[in-house]
Amino acid sequence: MRISELSERSGIAAATIKYYTREGLLPAGERIGHNQTSYDEHHVARLRMIRALLSHGGLSVQTAKHVLDVIDDPDLPLEHAVGTAHATLPTPSVAPSEASLERVHEMLRARNWASCAGNPGVDLAASALDAYDEIGRGDLADAIDGYADAAALIAETDLDFARRSGSRERMVETAIVGTLVGDRIIAGLRRIAQEALFRAGAPSDAWPAEPEPNPDPDHTD
Amino acid sequence: MRISELSERSGIAAATIKYYTREGLLPAGERIGHNQTSYDEHHVARLRMIRALLSHGGLSVQTAKHVLDVIDDPDLPLEHAVGTAHATLPTPSVAPSEASLERVHEMLRARNWASCAGNPGVDLAASALDAYDEIGRGDLADAIDGYADAAALIAETDLDFARRSGSRERMVETAIVGTLVGDRIIAGLRRIAQEALFRAGAPSDAWPAEPEPNPDPDHTD
Repeated sequence: MRISELSERSGIAAATIKYYTREGLLPAGERIGHNQTSYDEHHVARLRMIRALLSHGGLSVQTAKHVLDVIDDPDLPLEHAVGTAHATLPTPSVAPSEASLERVHEMLRARNWASCAGNPGVDLAASALDAYDEIGRGDLADAIDGYADAAALIAETDLDFARRSGSRERMVETAIVGTLVGDRIIAGLRRIAQEALFRAGAPSDAWPAEPEPNPDPDHTD
Repeated sequence: MRISELSERSGIAAATIKYYTREGLLPAGERIGHNQTSYDEHHVARLRMIRALLSHGGLSVQTAKHVLDVIDDPDLPLEHAVGTAHATLPTPSVAPSEASLERVHEMLRARNWASCAGNPGVDLAASALDAYDEIGRGDLADAIDGYADAAALIAETDLDFARRSGSRERMVETAIVGTLVGDRIIAGLRRIAQEALFRAGAPSDAWPAEPEPNPDPDHTD
C-alpha cells in the first residue's frame, strides 16, 4: 500500500510516519519507483505498537526505539526484555537518600525480595519517599507496606498473563506493553477504588470535614 | 530571609523561584526595600511542595497551580479536593471505545463500584484497554480484574493514611500528594515484585525460552 493508505489505516499523519522512519522506529517501506514507496501489514501493526508505546505508555521517541529494538531482537534473553520494560521507568532527578533506600531495602528483606535490590524500581520508590519527607509528611512512608502487598498482587497477574502468551515474541510484548499500559490502568482503577471506598464509608468518619483538637476514632454523626 | 537564602534552603535557583511567583504557584515575598524582598518559612515549605508536585508527581506548572489552589482554599469540600487529585490524571488523547467503556463498567458493577462511573479513571482505564486491542492483544484486557483487586488494596491504604492525618489541610495534602507520589511508588514496587516472582518461579515454567507447540503446564527442567 502507499503511504496515504498506511496513514489512513493507522490514523497517523504521513509526515509523522516519515519521522518515525527517520528515527528508526519504523522500518522503511519498499521503494517501487522513482518517488513511490510500498508498505505492508507489518507497517500497520508496527505503527499501532508505536502509538501504544508513545501515547498509552508515555514513552519518549528515543525510549520507544530502544523498547522496539528489544522486541525485535530474537536472541535477547527474556530476562533482559523484562529489564527493558523496567528501565523505561522515569529516573529520579536527584539520587535517593540513604535513609529512604534503607527503608525500601528493609521492605525487600521482609518479603524475601532482597535479590531485587538492583531493580530500577528501588530508586524510584526511595526517591518518592524522600518527596514525602521534603514536604514534612514522612509519616506517609509507612504506606509502602500496603503498596507492596498490592504490587505483589499486580505482579502475579502480570506473570500469569505473560505465561499464557505462548510464543517468546508475544511474551516479550506482554512484559513490556503490559507493564507500561498497565501502569495507567492501575492509576485509573486506584482513583475509582478511592472514590468507591470514600463513598462507602461514612464521610464524617473517613474524611472529617473539620479538624478536631481531640480526635475520637469512634466518633460518628 | 532574602531570595539567596531561600534558594539555598530549598535547593531551587533564584530565577526559578521568581518564575514560580510569576506563575502564581508561590506567594510573593514581602517587599522590604527598593530592590529587596523578604521570604519566610512558609515559602520554604511551599517550594518543597511545588517540587514534590512537579518532580515526583510529574505535574505541569499549570496543573500544579490548580492543585495548590485547592490545598489553599479552606472552604472547598473535601470531596472536591479528592476529585482534584483525580483530575490530574493524564487524559487520553482519543475518546475510549464503547466496548472498552462497557468492559470497565462491567467491572464496576461486579464490585458495586457503579456509583463511580463518572470518575476520570474510567476513561483512562478504558483507553488503555483500547491500546491492547490496537496492538492485537485484546486478551490482556482480562488483567483488569487482577488489577482491580490490587487497586482496592491500594485505596484501603490511601484511605487509612488520610483518616490518620488529623486536620483537614493535612488530609487534603494526603489525598493529593499521596495519590500523585504514590503512583510512582506503586510503579516502582510493581517492577520489583515482577522481578521477585520471576526469579522465584522456575524460568522455564514461568517464561519459557522457546515457544512450545503443545505447552505442558507441569513441565519443569
